[in-house]
Amino acid sequence: MVDERPGAGMAADIAEQPEVYARVLDEAAGPIAAVAAEIARRRPRHIVFTARGTSDHAALYGAYLAEIRLGLPAALASPSAVTVYGARPDLRDSLVIGVSQSGGSPDLREVVRVAREQGALTLAITNAPDSPLAEAAERSIDIRAGHERAVAATKTYTAELLALLMLIEGIRSGDGTVDTSGIGALPRLAADTLAGDAPEDLAGRYRFAGRMITTGRGYAYPTAREAALKLMETSYLPALAFSGADLLHGPLAMADPDVPVLAVVGGGPAGESMREVLARLADRRADVVTIGSRPKGSAHHLATPDVDERYAPLLDILPLQRLALSLALARGENPDRPRGLKKVTATR
Amino acid sequence: MVDERPGAGMAADIAEQPEVYARVLDEAAGPIAAVAAEIARRRPRHIVFTARGTSDHAALYGAYLAEIRLGLPAALASPSAVTVYGARPDLRDSLVIGVSQSGGSPDLREVVRVAREQGALTLAITNAPDSPLAEAAERSIDIRAGHERAVAATKTYTAELLALLMLIEGIRSGDGTVDTSGIGALPRLAADTLAGDAPEDLAGRYRFAGRMITTGRGYAYPTAREAALKLMETSYLPALAFSGADLLHGPLAMADPDVPVLAVVGGGPAGESMREVLARLADRRADVVTIGSRPKGSAHHLATPDVDERYAPLLDILPLQRLALSLALARGENPDRPRGLKKVTATR
Repeated sequence: MVDERPGAGMAADIAEQPEVYARVLDEAAGPIAAVAAEIARRRPRHIVFTARGTSDHAALYGAYLAEIRLGLPAALASPSAVTVYGARPDLRDSLVIGVSQSGGSPDLREVVRVAREQGALTLAITNAPDSPLAEAAERSIDIRAGHERAVAATKTYTAELLALLMLIEGIRSGDGTVDTSGIGALPRLAADTLAGDAPEDLAGRYRFAGRMITTGRGYAYPTAREAALKLMETSYLPALAFSGADLLHGPLAMADPDVPVLAVVGGGPAGESMREVLARLADRRADVVTIGSRPKGSAHHLATPDVDERYAPLLDILPLQRLALSLALARGENPDRPRGLKKVTATR
Repeated sequence: MVDERPGAGMAADIAEQPEVYARVLDEAAGPIAAVAAEIARRRPRHIVFTARGTSDHAALYGAYLAEIRLGLPAALASPSAVTVYGARPDLRDSLVIGVSQSGGSPDLREVVRVAREQGALTLAITNAPDSPLAEAAERSIDIRAGHERAVAATKTYTAELLALLMLIEGIRSGDGTVDTSGIGALPRLAADTLAGDAPEDLAGRYRFAGRMITTGRGYAYPTAREAALKLMETSYLPALAFSGADLLHGPLAMADPDVPVLAVVGGGPAGESMREVLARLADRRADVVTIGSRPKGSAHHLATPDVDERYAPLLDILPLQRLALSLALARGENPDRPRGLKKVTATR
């Protein structure tokens, strides 16, 4: 029986993530390793990701992984160059990866179809193995997240992150195998994170906020972007995401005591580089919530496990998803059925 | 003598753009053609841009141009992969372009320095030919915009756009030459655009707006991004920029009659593809201003000349810069000296 209370679907999706991680590690590992080994053998010279919405943030995480772990230039493509202007880039040395939970967006399918024609090795990462996107790509990976109840994506996002992590590490090893000493703990760490204090106090605190800022650097930047999108989709709250560096380039002027700032601050080099950002935010008397393994002297803190920054995006987003849910409910919205939002968006 | 009235500097910078276009076309054409011819000869397989803030939007325009006009995969890199995590991507087939008005950001200089070490052909596009960024790159282009009075960048942004346009067209021709039949008219068209009605009525209308949305697709998307940043920097107004396609993927839920939407709608294929976005915004009774050559049935319209969408970013941004200036003044701010904003931002 479907629970029809507002937010029940999103809450169930969020709670299921430790189980989804375990399933991806178990059932998807073999297929991902096979794809990774083939990519390693074909040796692409660079990687182009194409995605929209939440999956765009997973793709951004994939691009960081590819640059840092593989030493391959990697970036996100604008579908419109191909779909609107008919660009036909030479992609003979490229791996083109389309990321989409539904696999149903016509523009992504078209980008992947054209990329394959133009000589790229193409891969679809979706939660829908029979989708048009999966069919257009030469290879595909099923993220096995199961049916997502809410329109706002949560478990499909983190399943995409984990699939990308396993893929890139598998390419790095050369034969698709992945050292599971770090990754294997993620289901348990995700469960621990979700068992932590609910951010409901913060939802009460920000019930009447008129806007929010989210920020992070490096691997934490996709988390900041995804948190902002979740807040916008479910609470209709304008949430502006900036990399810590970009924030200092101008938008910092917007930060004042009326604007809550959610700062994702890891325990590694990117977290370290956020120190100046936090100091400047303190100068402006911003209301800062830090998300990470250690409080940074901010007024509020959402605790997540202390892991390598590479794994942190799979954990740091969890309390932020819960915050988006709680805040939407506090504002009288139903995050399972946001106004104006469809699960598959048919842009061209 | 320096005019110290609030906004006088930004107004003078904005007004100077037709003259800057003429200067770039005249004085910078030779140096740009030489660089373009060399790039054409060395045949990079893809282009990576690195930039921050306003220059990031110029780089985004450059990436569209490269994909559409050169058929080369092109995208924006995250400096932090290199500067924070020490990534050392293999860039032997790459052209890496750093875009920065000041050329002074240590992180961009570091990305370009590493790229050069990693085998890339490197190019700096700056308004400061003796800057660290220009010195780090193998080749550099001086955009000749002259001293920018205001902290918020206007004429350096559009001079970067024009330099990138001439560069890409010069690479396309193979020998650096550029067909000036379209480009040559830009100084006059820019002057015509700036002579149009001032958007001061709109500034009054939006004096008490709590947020704004900007949107556009294809070549118009960088314009939407830059307009949003200008509004944030000078009026501290949260302005959310979305590609037309991404807007339909969730953030559309935020649009309601209280949220002004600035929609950049060209006369070509991307403008055509905005039709559905405008229809959906009308469904939500959003308060829409269209920017482009033809009104689209929206309540308000800022007219710009009817040119190929490739040239439109050099004209469409002009009334939006003026709107940001007028709105900041209407809100009692001084856009020449925004709080918390420095001209050169020393992020690493």
